[in-house]
Amino acid sequence: MARNIQSLERAAAMLRLLAGGERRLGLSDIASSLGLAKGTAHGILRTLQQEGFVEQDDTSGRYQLGAELLRLGTTYLDVHELRARALVWTDDLARASGESVYLGVLHQQGVLIVHHVFRPDDSRQVLEIGAMQPLHSTALGKVLSAYDPVAHSEALEADRKPFTDRTVCDMTDFEHLLDITRARGYAADVEETWEGVASVAAPIHDRRRMPVGAVGITGAVERLCRDGELRPELIAAVRDCARAVSRDLGAGRF
Amino acid sequence: MARNIQSLERAAAMLRLLAGGERRLGLSDIASSLGLAKGTAHGILRTLQQEGFVEQDDTSGRYQLGAELLRLGTTYLDVHELRARALVWTDDLARASGESVYLGVLHQQGVLIVHHVFRPDDSRQVLEIGAMQPLHSTALGKVLSAYDPVAHSEALEADRKPFTDRTVCDMTDFEHLLDITRARGYAADVEETWEGVASVAAPIHDRRRMPVGAVGITGAVERLCRDGELRPELIAAVRDCARAVSRDLGAGRF
Repeated sequence: MARNIQSLERAAAMLRLLAGGERRLGLSDIASSLGLAKGTAHGILRTLQQEGFVEQDDTSGRYQLGAELLRLGTTYLDVHELRARALVWTDDLARASGESVYLGVLHQQGVLIVHHVFRPDDSRQVLEIGAMQPLHSTALGKVLSAYDPVAHSEALEADRKPFTDRTVCDMTDFEHLLDITRARGYAADVEETWEGVASVAAPIHDRRRMPVGAVGITGAVERLCRDGELRPELIAAVRDCARAVSRDLGAGRF
Repeated sequence: MARNIQSLERAAAMLRLLAGGERRLGLSDIASSLGLAKGTAHGILRTLQQEGFVEQDDTSGRYQLGAELLRLGTTYLDVHELRARALVWTDDLARASGESVYLGVLHQQGVLIVHHVFRPDDSRQVLEIGAMQPLHSTALGKVLSAYDPVAHSEALEADRKPFTDRTVCDMTDFEHLLDITRARGYAADVEETWEGVASVAAPIHDRRRMPVGAVGITGAVERLCRDGELRPELIAAVRDCARAVSRDLGAGRF
């Protein structure tokens, strides 16, 4: 097996560094964070800058992510088959449920949101396409962990942080939750990730019956739950949507 | 001046190649398009794949852009100062005008859309954040070309394609349009880019009076124009928004 290209791996590590935490970093910070000589780091940064992947602030000289990443990231969405097939069905789900809809796929150690339909109520909302959600606490993440073996190992290896008092962090309890998810065919998150917020999600399968993503709704726990339980009509709407997208992707009817 | 890193430049060229035209390419296509030996191209692609920048289709073996670009591109938006300052004002502009609002910055040879507020009428609309618009024919592009010297040279050097019968392609005519734009303080595009679509945009300046972007509205020519002229109240709303964002960025009042 041939070796990977070191300068590329280093460039990717720089972009990841600039994407987390501080987000605006000087040359010395970048070099020392990655254990590189300043000259080496500068050569990579200069090339990344020339290609539009990083930008340098004129006054402070600090580096941050560049516009070319936005252009390329949007193009990634344009060729995303699952997303393209789901557009109409997720619009319908938002209308039927009155809640915001998220479509997620496994990416690295979490769920990457590839589509987000706003709650249809004219309130100000923040678009979360491109954001990441944790695997162990969100409904989307639990669905992926329950159905996709790769997501499952990522969730088990991950540092399962307690976001609220209700987050399930213990490995045995978490595995039990995934058993329930598979038995029911959907996953729930009632204040396990955000206080006051509940979500429910179901798996999407492709023509080879592979779990390729998850779709779900998220909203205030007061609206999504009744007597402490998720409202059955919302669960039904989410599962209908997941089935419709799966069928559109060529999954069998049974 | 030190040399740039060749493997990084080649990796960036591959991502650009995958972002345009076909969007799903085999190893041979990529290698021959970039004039690389297959082994060289494969080494770069394998590293890009490992870092999540490209994905390979299991069945066809073809490459396409990867999810990590979406995650990084979204993070780019999170630290975008102009966008952050403009969020509230662009929402107000969409409400006041009843039309969709776009915020654009110069990127390479075009306008990169960094924020898009949907027309507030519950119709199905496609989010265009991350999309590119031409400099010579759109209202946003003309504003940038009129006020930003770098955008101006890019627009002059560009291949100014005729999108409709009304697109201004001739260099002298285009320069004259930019003079008018500077004299008026805003730019218009009445069916110069898309048949049936008009737009109007104004420049945003920062605390050093540098033109850092443009904001504008786009919609059906029947709604934006009256007797063949852009409605003055819409022009006023766009210019009010551009002034408000500029003030928020620290631009002087005069």
